[in-house]
Amino acid sequence: MSKKKVVLAYSGGLDTTFCAIYLSKEKDMEVHAVTVDTGGFTRQDIADIEKRALSLGAASYACINAVDDFYNQCIKYLIFGNVLKNGTYPLSVSAERIFQALTIAKYVQKINADAVAHGSTGAGNDQVRFDMAFNILIPKAEIITPIRDLKLSRQAEIEYLKKHGVQMNFEKAAYSINKGIWGTSVGGKETLTSHGSLPEAAYPSQLKKEKPEDVTLVFEKGELVGVNEEKFKNPAKAIAKLNELASPFAIGRDIHVGDTIIGIKGRVGFEAAAPLITIKAHHALEKHTLTKWQLYWKDQMSVWYGNWLHEGQFLDPVMRNIEKFLEDTQQFVSGKVFVTLVPYGFKINGIDSSHDLMSAKFGSYGEMNNSWTGDDVKGFAKIFGNQVAIYNAVNEIKP
Amino acid sequence: MSKKKVVLAYSGGLDTTFCAIYLSKEKDMEVHAVTVDTGGFTRQDIADIEKRALSLGAASYACINAVDDFYNQCIKYLIFGNVLKNGTYPLSVSAERIFQALTIAKYVQKINADAVAHGSTGAGNDQVRFDMAFNILIPKAEIITPIRDLKLSRQAEIEYLKKHGVQMNFEKAAYSINKGIWGTSVGGKETLTSHGSLPEAAYPSQLKKEKPEDVTLVFEKGELVGVNEEKFKNPAKAIAKLNELASPFAIGRDIHVGDTIIGIKGRVGFEAAAPLITIKAHHALEKHTLTKWQLYWKDQMSVWYGNWLHEGQFLDPVMRNIEKFLEDTQQFVSGKVFVTLVPYGFKINGIDSSHDLMSAKFGSYGEMNNSWTGDDVKGFAKIFGNQVAIYNAVNEIKP
Amino acid sequence: MSKKKVVLAYSGGLDTTFCAIYLSKEKDMEVHAVTVDTGGFTRQDIADIEKRALSLGAASYACINAVDDFYNQCIKYLIFGNVLKNGTYPLSVSAERIFQALTIAKYVQKINADAVAHGSTGAGNDQVRFDMAFNILIPKAEIITPIRDLKLSRQAEIEYLKKHGVQMNFEKAAYSINKGIWGTSVGGKETLTSHGSLPEAAYPSQLKKEKPEDVTLVFEKGELVGVNEEKFKNPAKAIAKLNELASPFAIGRDIHVGDTIIGIKGRVGFEAAAPLITIKAHHALEKHTLTKWQLYWKDQMSVWYGNWLHEGQFLDPVMRNIEKFLEDTQQFVSGKVFVTLVPYGFKINGIDSSHDLMSAKFGSYGEMNNSWTGDDVKGFAKIFGNQVAIYNAVNEIKP
Amino acid sequence: MSKKKVVLAYSGGLDTTFCAIYLSKEKDMEVHAVTVDTGGFTRQDIADIEKRALSLGAASYACINAVDDFYNQCIKYLIFGNVLKNGTYPLSVSAERIFQALTIAKYVQKINADAVAHGSTGAGNDQVRFDMAFNILIPKAEIITPIRDLKLSRQAEIEYLKKHGVQMNFEKAAYSINKGIWGTSVGGKETLTSHGSLPEAAYPSQLKKEKPEDVTLVFEKGELVGVNEEKFKNPAKAIAKLNELASPFAIGRDIHVGDTIIGIKGRVGFEAAAPLITIKAHHALEKHTLTKWQLYWKDQMSVWYGNWLHEGQFLDPVMRNIEKFLEDTQQFVSGKVFVTLVPYGFKINGIDSSHDLMSAKFGSYGEMNNSWTGDDVKGFAKIFGNQVAIYNAVNEIKP
Repeated sequence: MSKKKVVLAYSGGLDTTFCAIYLSKEKDMEVHAVTVDTGGFTRQDIADIEKRALSLGAASYACINAVDDFYNQCIKYLIFGNVLKNGTYPLSVSAERIFQALTIAKYVQKINADAVAHGSTGAGNDQVRFDMAFNILIPKAEIITPIRDLKLSRQAEIEYLKKHGVQMNFEKAAYSINKGIWGTSVGGKETLTSHGSLPEAAYPSQLKKEKPEDVTLVFEKGELVGVNEEKFKNPAKAIAKLNELASPFAIGRDIHVGDTIIGIKGRVGFEAAAPLITIKAHHALEKHTLTKWQLYWKDQMSVWYGNWLHEGQFLDPVMRNIEKFLEDTQQFVSGKVFVTLVPYGFKINGIDSSHDLMSAKFGSYGEMNNSWTGDDVKGFAKIFGNQVAIYNAVNEIKP
Repeated sequence: MSKKKVVLAYSGGLDTTFCAIYLSKEKDMEVHAVTVDTGGFTRQDIADIEKRALSLGAASYACINAVDDFYNQCIKYLIFGNVLKNGTYPLSVSAERIFQALTIAKYVQKINADAVAHGSTGAGNDQVRFDMAFNILIPKAEIITPIRDLKLSRQAEIEYLKKHGVQMNFEKAAYSINKGIWGTSVGGKETLTSHGSLPEAAYPSQLKKEKPEDVTLVFEKGELVGVNEEKFKNPAKAIAKLNELASPFAIGRDIHVGDTIIGIKGRVGFEAAAPLITIKAHHALEKHTLTKWQLYWKDQMSVWYGNWLHEGQFLDPVMRNIEKFLEDTQQFVSGKVFVTLVPYGFKINGIDSSHDLMSAKFGSYGEMNNSWTGDDVKGFAKIFGNQVAIYNAVNEIKP
Repeated sequence: MSKKKVVLAYSGGLDTTFCAIYLSKEKDMEVHAVTVDTGGFTRQDIADIEKRALSLGAASYACINAVDDFYNQCIKYLIFGNVLKNGTYPLSVSAERIFQALTIAKYVQKINADAVAHGSTGAGNDQVRFDMAFNILIPKAEIITPIRDLKLSRQAEIEYLKKHGVQMNFEKAAYSINKGIWGTSVGGKETLTSHGSLPEAAYPSQLKKEKPEDVTLVFEKGELVGVNEEKFKNPAKAIAKLNELASPFAIGRDIHVGDTIIGIKGRVGFEAAAPLITIKAHHALEKHTLTKWQLYWKDQMSVWYGNWLHEGQFLDPVMRNIEKFLEDTQQFVSGKVFVTLVPYGFKINGIDSSHDLMSAKFGSYGEMNNSWTGDDVKGFAKIFGNQVAIYNAVNEIKP
Repeated sequence: MSKKKVVLAYSGGLDTTFCAIYLSKEKDMEVHAVTVDTGGFTRQDIADIEKRALSLGAASYACINAVDDFYNQCIKYLIFGNVLKNGTYPLSVSAERIFQALTIAKYVQKINADAVAHGSTGAGNDQVRFDMAFNILIPKAEIITPIRDLKLSRQAEIEYLKKHGVQMNFEKAAYSINKGIWGTSVGGKETLTSHGSLPEAAYPSQLKKEKPEDVTLVFEKGELVGVNEEKFKNPAKAIAKLNELASPFAIGRDIHVGDTIIGIKGRVGFEAAAPLITIKAHHALEKHTLTKWQLYWKDQMSVWYGNWLHEGQFLDPVMRNIEKFLEDTQQFVSGKVFVTLVPYGFKINGIDSSHDLMSAKFGSYGEMNNSWTGDDVKGFAKIFGNQVAIYNAVNEIKP
């Protein structure tokens, strides 16, 4: 009988390296290692990961670039919705993990594997995201999670790897870093407490520029398609470009305090220059081009959309329905946004759009105009407050 | 027959000075001038305003300090709700105007006046806020709005005042400034366009400190009761103290782009150091002490609450209902928040609270613990994704 | 100089007949009378109205059938959203008026008229709906509202008409009836109080059948496309068919108590057999085919959508955005719904759909199955209640 | 060593009878059987249950009446919120189960038991409700669920009971009935399919009256305190009285199609005369006494409140916050509601309240009045549609 095929979500780190050996040696499975690139790896990283995977006896290795899927199916809507969880966090890792899971699931189906394995522990969000995506998309594939099941200590893992001749850097990094196109998370030490803030050095980008720089962002139907003079067909590339310009200013750092899917609270630092600038610039443009109630409903739905995405529920069809709503709001969200980058921050200066509803043609705030009269407003105020006036009169409420 | 009594909302500026004379001279009314102080006047300001009012022939002048009412009936809830309109603006002027209107209405009733006058033009939000409050609270009082009704040019007003012997600075300021405890607004020139940003000098506070400073804020049931070592019985005073500490860093500046009540879009600059720091610090504390759904519902309701307040609908009883909701969420929002002030900005470093749900006793994010097992989470993920799994199976949706 | 052209929304009743004469005689305008049929007129009605219009000296008369537009641009979404205002009223008149206004606006533009006139009084919702649609869509056309402006008594109108030789039934009906495809409203006498209910005879349909009848409704992507064995390409015709079957049972009567746009409360009786049955049947099908959160968000948005439509704000682009959301939820809302019609009511018996998520294949309520185990649920309950358990422990809350 | 103490939620049925014996015989525990009465037991029922419990060797038996707690802590808010899940179901069982769990948890604490046992299977909602309440409130008590864990067939249970000398009616009822003050659920046969409806005989009340009867309900601050001439200090008794009057009309039957907590869909029949009449009457009174936005927000929050309650999350503190909101809206929801009971249904005829906002003093719908003019409404319509007019103009949208 031939060996069972298992697809292993492989990052090249300690846990998934353990899994690779464990699955092939102890479980006697045919291991197909896959790395899903959501924008956080260099070519060299991938080459190193591939080399290690194959050295561990993996039957095959593949690195799948999922940046475009990630942008088109998810980041785009996070921008449309100006999604910042708890007003702060662009959901960098939360969103990315789901696209890694979806990509792995497709691969399992493609190579017709019997099982799928991931290196999550039993303590975080990722296990839920992976489990759920696999339960939903590839219900027939067995899900194997050696790290969660065996509950090995880090030391025990290292010994196991050494015993199997694995050579890698076994030293634990001070901070656990996760990098992708929609931001980099930084966890460890201070973030494990409620009161500490990360030291300068913990962040991936260091301040290299002090002199403010102006950047013009060009949006078309809500998507970032231009940075200064440069046009981009692929907005994911525009985001990468903006990140390149903004990172030397050490922009976009903060600490996210959030509710994990499993009910505990957690903190994680992050640096997400392009995501934050893009969202704030996009929002500024929307404030000029959308009606009051478009802005309102976008707010209401986006908060929930972000939460549900964070909880790994991207596949709930209501998410598609909300995306249709969000997309439809973007019809006229086109124009330029003027931004100034400064050390550790940025300023949105203003916008220019042919869809700007703050058009002087129709009256300026605080200035009289021809479209309506003071008497119109008097009548408006009368009627607008009519029900509460009746309420106060009926219930005899005094000032 | 005795003269009709009119209460005039009097700020000492050009428009209300015109009204004072117009009401007494042309309308032959007994003018009772009232200034409502919501935290933006110095003693000298008030003395000057009183002197001018009386010199214009006002039958009486009163300055009513409404800061405590403003805090207790409004600002408190804006903090509980972390209300920033469109994610930016603490509603400095919007909220203040309403308390000015309420205070004036009470005064009208107290002195049993026949009419009430305000100096609003026909082009902004304030006319609606004043009209509505008066229609609702003192429906029998006639509302008189000379500036809106006469549609005089600034020059015509000046001539009228000069003719009546008024001596004041008739030069138009480059920016129109409105100051109160919940922030200062700055409008004019650049804010009349969609693209300009205000120059440094337009803001009320100038950068005077460069070296970062740590500040500890103490909250009790959601209210700011301590700044560093100092305790405050009256949170309004704590806010004033924080503003004093933060203003030399030129913190809390931004431009608000918003929908006016009358449907047009408008921009206004603002500086609101204490409001922004207080809200962000309070929100940080909430992220540690409230459950996920408390945070969610607070978000949903607060956005709407802020909008409805902005539109002058503070008196709708639903606002009281929402305030009860907000207040009830604050039961355990007590503790310290550690903040660092830096030039033009601030950082929330962390919190310390005995109600912190991120308690290591109950498991840390990413660390195993004793309260649940990996198997529990497996089961959770199975059930949590069950409906979508069924949905995909029934509708034959493939990865 | 040629006469100014005015389009008059003409229903053939007292008020609009007055307008027709007034506009041509007193205002010396070229009157183009238009009736918009939203499903409430017989051929004979229209022939009579046309005859009268021309006899009054109208330059032209047109009857425009707007049923299909009304269905495709509005009723469809009211069904998708299961919209019943305050849980009761299918918005029969509210929705219809807007389509009459839109149709009139198009006609004004088509014949390039200078003005548009409607016969609304100053006391109801319709004036706002008409005014707003015209202000928005044809801002250059003058809006003329003789009844509102002249504030004539009914008697004065009648005398004016008699003087101009108009012959019509001048007797006031006991109830004011408004009929359209989405229901008939009945107002007057009892509905002017808070406590009275309409007598049997006031309703348009009288009970003619006593024996229960089964009806099978067929939906495709949320639209009613079949009634019993009969298939319909045009769902508006299916609705009409259903109404024909259900009306002899005197189904769908109730009294709506609602907030008018102008702030007062009002009551109106209605009979809407097909709308109510269609919505309840559609909702039943959705409960079987949509996920929990699809149902939830549909509820949240639909309540607001219905309210905003009621207030004449159909043209706000957020309405289009919400429609996209609603439409996208209907992808799998296909199947049969089994209904029994009884005197004054109906029962939804059940459904049959290939998209039914209550599929026995995936486990039945209360029965064990193969997709998950009791241990999975134990783990789920542990994690699902984890945050509140921590909350209670941290805050020492006792049972 | 002394035996471990276990509190068993005991209903007297097959499953919990099995548990009683199993816990004492196989687990050697000291079994304290408790029945929580939420309004569904007669005295005779309780006497029988007690007798059986003690005959099985239970160390003690207690029946705790939780009707008042259930009303004061839950039903009251379901009425305030007009909560009908999916527009249909008053959450009869969902709400009741939680109060049974809370009561049991208190008892566990009171007698200082080591463990708590419930007879839920692994297939329904109740296991989650019980598990969660116990995990949260009495985290130190072991939760024992013999039926779920042993996965015994009904036949195996019966044999076990017979072996242990238990004498009871082992015949399976055609329908599983659950009765309480907030309604009776009826499940089985037809409800296990998607298309069947329950036969007449399956419902607890049979039609005994044909002649319509008028009933006057009196509400005070949202609570039912009077039925016809009778006043009640305890609204739970008023509900019971109303149920007595309405049941002979076979009112309040329907089938609920809902999402279980574990993700599958399920159907259950119910009969809930008093709950449905109370909610609809209360809602009618609110339509007259609350402002538009009070009604709106009550709708939005109540849908979610009902869902979260249904999912067993009653202990989330956000539920207390929402209750505060709901309670605060009820200040003026006082007055009479006139209802007519008819076979299988009821009609809300109207209301009488001194807080009625539909007061003729302030203008009647469709009638002119003195509070505002047609010109006021013209102005209102102009401003109310201003933003969309600008939107259409800027974006050149044509009718």
